[in-house]
Amino acid sequence: MTKITAHELAKKQKEISVAEFFERNKHILGFGNQTRALITSVKEGVDNSLDACEEANILPDIYVEIKNGEDSECKIIIEDNGPGVVKKQIPHIFGRLLYGSRFHAIRQSRGQQGIGISAVVLYGQLTTGKHTKIISKIEPNRPAVINELVIDTNKNRAEVIGRDTIHWEKPTGTRIEVSIIADFVRGKRFVYDYLQSTSIVNPHAQITYKELDGNEYFFERTAETLPRKAIEIKPHPYGVELGTLIKMAKYTKSRQLNSFLKTEFSSMGDRTTNAAIEKAGLEKNLNPKQMTRDQFLALHKAFKKVKIMAPSTDCLSPIGETLIKRSLKNETQEISPEFIITASRPPSVYSGNPFQIEVGLVYGGKLPKEEQVKLLRFANRVPLLYQQGGCVTTSAISSIDWRRYGLTQPSGKGIPTGPAIFLTHVSSSLIPFTSESKEAIADVDEIENEIKLAFRECTRKVQHHINKKVRRKKTREKFDLITRILPEIAKKSANMLDKPVPSLDPIITKIMDVVWIEDLIEYEKISRKPVQTTLTDDPEANKEGIITKSKIMVVNYKRSPQKFNLYALIPEDAVVGTVNPKPSKITDKYIKWNLESIPSANKIDIYFELAGLAQGDFDENDLYIDNINPTFVIGADKWEGD
Amino acid sequence: MTKITAHELAKKQKEISVAEFFERNKHILGFGNQTRALITSVKEGVDNSLDACEEANILPDIYVEIKNGEDSECKIIIEDNGPGVVKKQIPHIFGRLLYGSRFHAIRQSRGQQGIGISAVVLYGQLTTGKHTKIISKIEPNRPAVINELVIDTNKNRAEVIGRDTIHWEKPTGTRIEVSIIADFVRGKRFVYDYLQSTSIVNPHAQITYKELDGNEYFFERTAETLPRKAIEIKPHPYGVELGTLIKMAKYTKSRQLNSFLKTEFSSMGDRTTNAAIEKAGLEKNLNPKQMTRDQFLALHKAFKKVKIMAPSTDCLSPIGETLIKRSLKNETQEISPEFIITASRPPSVYSGNPFQIEVGLVYGGKLPKEEQVKLLRFANRVPLLYQQGGCVTTSAISSIDWRRYGLTQPSGKGIPTGPAIFLTHVSSSLIPFTSESKEAIADVDEIENEIKLAFRECTRKVQHHINKKVRRKKTREKFDLITRILPEIAKKSANMLDKPVPSLDPIITKIMDVVWIEDLIEYEKISRKPVQTTLTDDPEANKEGIITKSKIMVVNYKRSPQKFNLYALIPEDAVVGTVNPKPSKITDKYIKWNLESIPSANKIDIYFELAGLAQGDFDENDLYIDNINPTFVIGADKWEGD
Repeated sequence: MTKITAHELAKKQKEISVAEFFERNKHILGFGNQTRALITSVKEGVDNSLDACEEANILPDIYVEIKNGEDSECKIIIEDNGPGVVKKQIPHIFGRLLYGSRFHAIRQSRGQQGIGISAVVLYGQLTTGKHTKIISKIEPNRPAVINELVIDTNKNRAEVIGRDTIHWEKPTGTRIEVSIIADFVRGKRFVYDYLQSTSIVNPHAQITYKELDGNEYFFERTAETLPRKAIEIKPHPYGVELGTLIKMAKYTKSRQLNSFLKTEFSSMGDRTTNAAIEKAGLEKNLNPKQMTRDQFLALHKAFKKVKIMAPSTDCLSPIGETLIKRSLKNETQEISPEFIITASRPPSVYSGNPFQIEVGLVYGGKLPKEEQVKLLRFANRVPLLYQQGGCVTTSAISSIDWRRYGLTQPSGKGIPTGPAIFLTHVSSSLIPFTSESKEAIADVDEIENEIKLAFRECTRKVQHHINKKVRRKKTREKFDLITRILPEIAKKSANMLDKPVPSLDPIITKIMDVVWIEDLIEYEKISRKPVQTTLTDDPEANKEGIITKSKIMVVNYKRSPQKFNLYALIPEDAVVGTVNPKPSKITDKYIKWNLESIPSANKIDIYFELAGLAQGDFDENDLYIDNINPTFVIGADKWEGD
Repeated sequence: MTKITAHELAKKQKEISVAEFFERNKHILGFGNQTRALITSVKEGVDNSLDACEEANILPDIYVEIKNGEDSECKIIIEDNGPGVVKKQIPHIFGRLLYGSRFHAIRQSRGQQGIGISAVVLYGQLTTGKHTKIISKIEPNRPAVINELVIDTNKNRAEVIGRDTIHWEKPTGTRIEVSIIADFVRGKRFVYDYLQSTSIVNPHAQITYKELDGNEYFFERTAETLPRKAIEIKPHPYGVELGTLIKMAKYTKSRQLNSFLKTEFSSMGDRTTNAAIEKAGLEKNLNPKQMTRDQFLALHKAFKKVKIMAPSTDCLSPIGETLIKRSLKNETQEISPEFIITASRPPSVYSGNPFQIEVGLVYGGKLPKEEQVKLLRFANRVPLLYQQGGCVTTSAISSIDWRRYGLTQPSGKGIPTGPAIFLTHVSSSLIPFTSESKEAIADVDEIENEIKLAFRECTRKVQHHINKKVRRKKTREKFDLITRILPEIAKKSANMLDKPVPSLDPIITKIMDVVWIEDLIEYEKISRKPVQTTLTDDPEANKEGIITKSKIMVVNYKRSPQKFNLYALIPEDAVVGTVNPKPSKITDKYIKWNLESIPSANKIDIYFELAGLAQGDFDENDLYIDNINPTFVIGADKWEGD
């Protein structure tokens, strides 16, 4: 063999277009096999539609259809009522990889890469050789435009093959029609699952799904307002890399260091800016474009020495515990689990990117005992269906020793086995996906930690829930005994002695010596308002077809009168209706009553109504008390403050 | 909230440069945290050097150094004796993502993406703001060039900040010096592990590693020839997508369909080409540039109806069972495992890409019994250290029920627990990595299947090995009994009767009634030739410092003379030395003897030598026999043919 020179090797070196790269590595984008290709295509289309609607403040109304083609070809149609796309942008957005509006914005969104939807177009063309059709309408009084696209992968640019205008009834919207080779038979169930999960965590969206075999499914909108809008923020100094700082300075319009810091970063007020500049030993009026690497390095180090407020979490839009609970209820309808517990962590930050963890746990019922726990994963309200093994949510769960919670787990590591479902939702302005297919989240330490903390909180709640149940059961047995047996004895003794039956209340009270709190929850259907098609901020519009009615009975089985405060937790998104007796305080988290003195052996009834919830969202009261020794109370715990 | 129009949204839409994309998503490239950043940087540099050397037919001699910088900065230096890089290409290869020579070539190589090494430069600049230095020398008699690079991420282009020529002693080579923020303390062990594993599966490479704290390690070259060169092949018709076919036709220089098929695809001879064209109902002399989609579709379908030879597997360069065994031996030096078994599958194809699976299994010894089995993963001779959970090798292993092989595995799924190590090597012209970080292989069905088959073969061999051991042990007990006890009895009886001790051979033979085969392996050190620095094809140069000596004893304990054939398997890469008696055949897989008739109660000694192996590579004979009833033979199995 003879040596080959650098000159000979140089002949082969050339540029690789990003489209060409992904054409060859389509599995990286989630098109690894024909089942996944189907799901990825639907997912990218729907995610794109949801993002577009939310950005334009429109309640999403999405139509998904899968049609039969020749051989194993599927035609996928996804239509929304979003703002549409201006004519000039259509070939870029749908026919060019790495192009979009969400990449440069720091806020929670589904699409962050500017790859997804064009990848679908690319995959369609690669496997079927057919063009993709895009219909877009941007104004109610103008016709829609229709485009036929083809991607030149060597250049990563779309060619518009045909362009026309057509009449379309929608006021505004976008429709994509793309033919791909896919395995509908195997992928069918996953598409349904994906749409269902999506609908549950996006209750403001309405999704219609028409399957290839003609079946039509309708996932109803159950919330008439958009979720809290994720606001775009600026980069935070704590997370910015030195190289990024240098680059930002190169492109800034500011001519002075202090205005550069104040305008280009978040959490940088006058005081913090000055402190950072001083710590770095620099001058306020330095021109950022003329700073040396050493000056940037000093500034970068100074950031870490100055106390800077955490980045605003307005850029996040978590799902909320109620929706998580609902999602899990839905998932376990036929399983009648023993309990569903949720927990959410306060927002946190990794490399300057805000993120927040919410988790849920279902246990018992008909869930299989001999199988691995089922993991449900969500990122920015998008269900993740693949690559579970490579996801930080899985590694976080695997690193917890679940054996002490009654699950099987050899050596205390790995996914435990037992009758449970674990749900994790990560929301972030930048989800660190392990690849462009957005199927798994990378093992960032901060995220892994927060997930572990969230599940620990969950298990604490589970323990609390079980303890409460056990205590209540024990007391109830005692109570049953006393209230059934004692009267019998009294009656019999009285009869034998031919005396009147004595009142047993004081005796029962003496034996029980507790305040007994019991509750009951009922649901009432109310005639539902017609679906609002226009946008509104009116919270009343959020009203559901269900009123949740909570009845609480407080019985004083102590020998002396009792006077204390009672707190009932309520879900954040519930609207409080009638409350009886008059509460002393209502916040978005709880209702508080200063209960009047209850005489011994007397009871008091408490009632409140919640609107804006689905049946079962609120199915157990979480009650707390203060101003009384909590060991004397059954059915409520010590109030630890807000 | 008011609706936002498409025009307003359009203002934010813009192109994302690929460098900018990865700058923000650096975890996708393997720079998710500071530990991984260190390993990824070393890995990309070394992989690049190995590829370059092999392409130029040079035995790699690689120097890796990690130096201390300020704060948690590390300076990484990687130097090779490869062909160097021509001046004009330096900024492209090291400073531009998606640029290179290996992407467009269909053959096994470490780098396939044209991203790796520029990603290191990008990460260095991002975290330290420093330039990267590249030294390259392409001809022995000319000076080396030195370049300082900086990447403009908005354009994905490198700027050369400084360029100069310097004297460098090497005849040719490349040296990169890049400063990155990394965690050396935590990453240290992994860098060592990575280099060690790399050295084991690349025995033709010599690697010197100088650690930050001054320690220097030397991973010696143990094979003086390059591995079989992976030859570039053309795409195979079975795996080509319709869209790719259309694109290829657009860019071909051929003007007629038949010459297009013959020149642009592999395995397309005259007959196959004509058959495909005929099946598609097309004409040979059609101009490929003028064909319609329907014509391409017909041709694409016709490919599947015609029998086309599998793609050539010259494009692959597997590790080989001997090296795999050596790698596992090395990994388990202090563990003294019960056995090490390897298996390799014939090459196979997924989506037109040839691939091949090799596996190994270590069991017992001091391996921990209560922990999950350790998985070792390799792809194209590169050790994979991260993302085990998301890798097809893991899911294939997890889907096998290992309980029947004595490992713990709840519900028969997941990574089993027990004293074992599993190794998997995937080689392919296109490894379907789940992301650009090349840490895990996507779950391609064909690959998963082959891995399962390979491990099944392994477990069969394990079973075989155990059975053989058990049978031999049982017979040996019987044999010991007979050869110790019988003579005692005979001696005593003879003494008592005052008669001479009778010969027991016929009796022993009668009781044993088998042909007994036993073997012994010894190693002898020989004076080693000096390391060859020039390239050579001489197989003698492959000679190691060890001669493996195999001694086989065949004893006929049957009552009649026996005459049969004996086969001893030998590793493919071994060189056969002295063989005694004269064999009837030597292939690269076995040595065969037609054994002369062995009289009853007689024995025959067989001896052979192997060179080119390390001590322990060959530590047990695998013996087969034919022309004799195999149930009468202990120590060899029935020969099933080549």
